[in-house]
Amino acid sequence: MSLLVIGSVAFDALETPFGKTDKIIGGAATYISLAASYSTRPVNLVAVVGDDFPQADILTLEEHGVDTTGLQIKPGEKSFFWSGKYSQDLNSRETITTELNVLGSFDPVIPTSYLDCKYLMLGNLAPQVQRLVIQRLVNRPKLIVLDTMNFWMDSAAADLLHVVEMIDVLSINDEEARQLSGEYSLVKAARKILTLGPKFLIIKKGEHGALLFHKNKVFFCPALPLEEVFDPTGAGDTFAGGFIGHIAATDDCSFENLKRAVVRGSAMASFCVEKFGPERLLNLTDEEIEAREAQFAELVRVVPAAVVA
Amino acid sequence: MSLLVIGSVAFDALETPFGKTDKIIGGAATYISLAASYSTRPVNLVAVVGDDFPQADILTLEEHGVDTTGLQIKPGEKSFFWSGKYSQDLNSRETITTELNVLGSFDPVIPTSYLDCKYLMLGNLAPQVQRLVIQRLVNRPKLIVLDTMNFWMDSAAADLLHVVEMIDVLSINDEEARQLSGEYSLVKAARKILTLGPKFLIIKKGEHGALLFHKNKVFFCPALPLEEVFDPTGAGDTFAGGFIGHIAATDDCSFENLKRAVVRGSAMASFCVEKFGPERLLNLTDEEIEAREAQFAELVRVVPAAVVA
Repeated sequence: MSLLVIGSVAFDALETPFGKTDKIIGGAATYISLAASYSTRPVNLVAVVGDDFPQADILTLEEHGVDTTGLQIKPGEKSFFWSGKYSQDLNSRETITTELNVLGSFDPVIPTSYLDCKYLMLGNLAPQVQRLVIQRLVNRPKLIVLDTMNFWMDSAAADLLHVVEMIDVLSINDEEARQLSGEYSLVKAARKILTLGPKFLIIKKGEHGALLFHKNKVFFCPALPLEEVFDPTGAGDTFAGGFIGHIAATDDCSFENLKRAVVRGSAMASFCVEKFGPERLLNLTDEEIEAREAQFAELVRVVPAAVVA
Repeated sequence: MSLLVIGSVAFDALETPFGKTDKIIGGAATYISLAASYSTRPVNLVAVVGDDFPQADILTLEEHGVDTTGLQIKPGEKSFFWSGKYSQDLNSRETITTELNVLGSFDPVIPTSYLDCKYLMLGNLAPQVQRLVIQRLVNRPKLIVLDTMNFWMDSAAADLLHVVEMIDVLSINDEEARQLSGEYSLVKAARKILTLGPKFLIIKKGEHGALLFHKNKVFFCPALPLEEVFDPTGAGDTFAGGFIGHIAATDDCSFENLKRAVVRGSAMASFCVEKFGPERLLNLTDEEIEAREAQFAELVRVVPAAVVA
């Protein structure tokens, strides 16, 4: 089912305790699109880059079923660039450089061929831009998922609340849920946030898993205990991509299916952190993904004693 | 099946953002025994208090099926006392007072009627004392579970490693697992720790759940997302009590049954934090506990799409 993804396509330069990279392809929409492409194709992409963005990287996206008709290339301008350095335990990171470049004036033009979009994934971007996208679609999508971050809560809170009213699923991390709600307890935070518009709330807790709230129901998916986390960049976006990809592929917005989508997203994120940037997302097989999903099921599996006896 | 619990029985004075208490009954063995008593009785207790310890509190333990034959009462001496204050988010606490008192010279005398112990729970205490208990038993118990903390890793590392060699299940938190192994990754930490003697390792992550490692297998049990955590004191000990109580009641030391024991421990701990000290553990019903365990199962339940179709 037609999936539209909006977000940044960019350059990142990363430093972790395990090494550092030069400028590599990054950006929320890159991770989302690649992760979703293992469930559903095409992934219709709306994003903007400068003419410094390599044709080879655009081709890589195309090879993964990403339709780049909506990828604007601004002549004479530079792509969004972020560089950062992770702490020894990878639990915090320091931003070294943020160059907005083309993203500073991003006007999300949606190609006519994308307008019948049934599933919309709004990757982390200025809330005004996210809202513009919804307004420019002819029909209201069946499901709108929005990912955002504390930066917009600090700098554009009113705009953010405005777009949050219009969506179905909000995806944020635990600290952001606390900030947005003013509640420390995630259960209380979720209850408040679910009055702001969304019917579903995902709270991402990184290495501690993810929670899905809906009405009075809650689902928890752990993160897989990993021997080595190499680079956490893009894990949250990859989660979102796996999540929306599963829903678009199955065309089922029930709570039960959203639970499965959270497992899919968690499995995709567990691959993402194994290598630098989106590298691990470029050559996955269906067998690898299924085996990883089975590990998630096994991790929490308890056989009741009565069944054993 | 005969369960022996060793640990502190003490006074605590607690301050949380929600209020403060005068001296109330506390101590690892108190929480362990009460939690275990909902699965198996009697719980044979070996501990020491001063003559300041109220007869009423001893009666409370007795009423919950705790055999206090092994509770030494030292005339003219005072019970162990700890007071502490929790941070606003309950994630850290400051020790205000630690008075070892009778615990400073604790010689764990094991009553003859306890000597056939099949299940042994060594609550947090000096590792030398934990080891003495094992040596004083006539027969080696079927399963020995040991809980400890970073304090002993700092101050009595050699003694701790010595007793850890002799046990079956080690129960520590994530920071302690990292400290003991020198590995940040919990998967790597577990692999190292499982070479030190124990066949099973429990890593408690507080509000982020608990992991059970055995050989190359791992099980994860989330913590229940709670609306309000009132007082986390004793949650880890309560977990241990629920865990060993379940194993003693079922007399089954398989990995599958230890997984169920982790769920039981987590359920008991989720009650413990609802009120000050051990208060919530005094009047639970089997129905409440079963309903809570069902919530844990529901929290991670995913129905595969194929089953639904």
